[in-house]
Amino acid sequence: MDKKKEYKSALQVQEGIPQPPSINPDVLNGTGRKRRKKYSVDEYVTGVLSGNMTILSQAITLVESSLPEHYVIAQTIIEKCLPHSRKSIRIGITGVPGAGKSTFIETFGLHLTGTGRKLAVLTVDPSSELTKGSILGDKTRMEQLSTHPGAFIRPSPAAGTLGGVARKTRETIILCESAGFDTILVETVGVGQSETEVRSMVDFFLLLMLAGAGDELQGIKRGIMEMADLVAITKADGPNKLFAERERVSFENALHLFSPKLSGWKTPVLTCSALKNIGISELWEIIGEYFKFTMDSGYFEKLRKQQAIIRMHSTIVDYLHNSFYNHKDVRLLKPKLEQQLNEGSITSYKAALHLLDKYSKR
Amino acid sequence: MDKKKEYKSALQVQEGIPQPPSINPDVLNGTGRKRRKKYSVDEYVTGVLSGNMTILSQAITLVESSLPEHYVIAQTIIEKCLPHSRKSIRIGITGVPGAGKSTFIETFGLHLTGTGRKLAVLTVDPSSELTKGSILGDKTRMEQLSTHPGAFIRPSPAAGTLGGVARKTRETIILCESAGFDTILVETVGVGQSETEVRSMVDFFLLLMLAGAGDELQGIKRGIMEMADLVAITKADGPNKLFAERERVSFENALHLFSPKLSGWKTPVLTCSALKNIGISELWEIIGEYFKFTMDSGYFEKLRKQQAIIRMHSTIVDYLHNSFYNHKDVRLLKPKLEQQLNEGSITSYKAALHLLDKYSKR
Repeated sequence: MDKKKEYKSALQVQEGIPQPPSINPDVLNGTGRKRRKKYSVDEYVTGVLSGNMTILSQAITLVESSLPEHYVIAQTIIEKCLPHSRKSIRIGITGVPGAGKSTFIETFGLHLTGTGRKLAVLTVDPSSELTKGSILGDKTRMEQLSTHPGAFIRPSPAAGTLGGVARKTRETIILCESAGFDTILVETVGVGQSETEVRSMVDFFLLLMLAGAGDELQGIKRGIMEMADLVAITKADGPNKLFAERERVSFENALHLFSPKLSGWKTPVLTCSALKNIGISELWEIIGEYFKFTMDSGYFEKLRKQQAIIRMHSTIVDYLHNSFYNHKDVRLLKPKLEQQLNEGSITSYKAALHLLDKYSKR
Repeated sequence: MDKKKEYKSALQVQEGIPQPPSINPDVLNGTGRKRRKKYSVDEYVTGVLSGNMTILSQAITLVESSLPEHYVIAQTIIEKCLPHSRKSIRIGITGVPGAGKSTFIETFGLHLTGTGRKLAVLTVDPSSELTKGSILGDKTRMEQLSTHPGAFIRPSPAAGTLGGVARKTRETIILCESAGFDTILVETVGVGQSETEVRSMVDFFLLLMLAGAGDELQGIKRGIMEMADLVAITKADGPNKLFAERERVSFENALHLFSPKLSGWKTPVLTCSALKNIGISELWEIIGEYFKFTMDSGYFEKLRKQQAIIRMHSTIVDYLHNSFYNHKDVRLLKPKLEQQLNEGSITSYKAALHLLDKYSKR
């Protein structure tokens, strides 16, 4: 990490603080930057709905852009796609470090595409600003899956705000579903807060654990274990198989201590090996049982509706941020105030009031 | 965890989404709830500046409140306290699970108060909604320190938003400094995002690591290691001492691979035992060296100014959220739209537009 980046990261990766909009050349037109074909909203919608991967990718890029003009177009595209986006199942995946998430997703994904499902893999990585590289390698770390015609892999951009990333992921899900993907895997790379976010946008949450990682270290995962609908102990092959089985039993006992879930579903614990393709189809069968169970009980639909409320709030917050930081006068005044703060000639609060005042006079 | 809580937590702990204001009886007056003495802004300021712990606590509670009328009072108090708040040093502390953070802070804190320093310990715990109890036990887990006259321990409320918690912590720091605390410890309980937040509000960042936790499991900490100004391997006593020393050397080697910090400071790696009080005073000496070094070089002041910019943005975002969610018409319409979302009779986007429309007509 070079000096500049280090400094930047300590200061810039601020939760809740919008970053300057990152201009994406793919959707820019007429500014002298790289030009690409510019689509109308209807062309985007038709393209996405017909499963055109190029247009889908560009629509996602548009969604991820922070430019105000893109925001309105993106929201309109999503709104038009929405009626076509509820036919899929959404699965969140997380895992302790070392659980072999990439290998798992590769094997699991190939199994799914093998059964004829169309799979989109989305990655949420709030720490990407600090641990660069983990995401860029996405396509290479899932080599076979990424070239499979039935699969689509899309890493999140290294955006500054966790909330921002997740908000975009929520909309990317809708685009992928509209493009015909019937299975959405949302992978979270970070540990902690991001899981809660991801849980709020999926139907099912899968937790990958590792045998022998130690109680103390896995202890922090209690909150995450409570969110899991299925726990899989990975790398259960060769001499490790025995340990994995032992760990499975101990997790199963631990899960008994939790109160039953609101869904009524009892979280099973499995062992599997992605490398040797052991236990993967069993795991998929159990996920199928979960969906049958929750669809029959009405919980599936209920949860989706609750998530729609969350989506409403996240749209609002996104809009408020965009509206403020893209306001003409705010953009003009902001660098001056930052300069004054750097000189120590104004307090943060006064500077904030100045900007808010400009904004309220819009 | 009971059913209701589980359900709530999966849906509610949404990053960036303001929660309904939690009414704090301590600062309410005349509403028929519990009455306490109501202070004027000047009484708050005088009380805080004179080091009155009761008034300090109440001022923090006011800062943590989300009621619009409290917001303005709180900001005014902070603004008036600000000129008196820059005489302290701010230290962030994080640690891998099992590193014994509480025990460390207890011993470290008693050492500091023993040298005459006045210490405030603030805790940021974004996961508290899920892992209830970790925070409530704060005072009992630092038994001696919490009863020490030179120390003040304040856990963050289990607020719904990570950003919210951190924004409050930033202002709580100012209040504590105004009340005469010259050393602020900001402890982060979560892993991941919260460290970056805490790093942006402190001068110095201490990372507690554990010997023998395994490279793979500590690997995720790379980004956090890069933020650390000092790494301490804890529990270096008895038979564990040898492992701790080995780990120390391996961390030292690992740190050599990183580019030098912008501060010019080389992150040292130490071993210590809070239980046996070994290495604690050495650690404190090194922290002293860091402050001398960065104050001499001007980096200390430079970083504080950069952090003032972050504080400006966090004040703005906080204001935007508060202003929206406390808007009379928004409060009236919100439950109706949530009801419609629950019935599936409206899309999230349309609901968001409705609310934004009401708000913009204010």
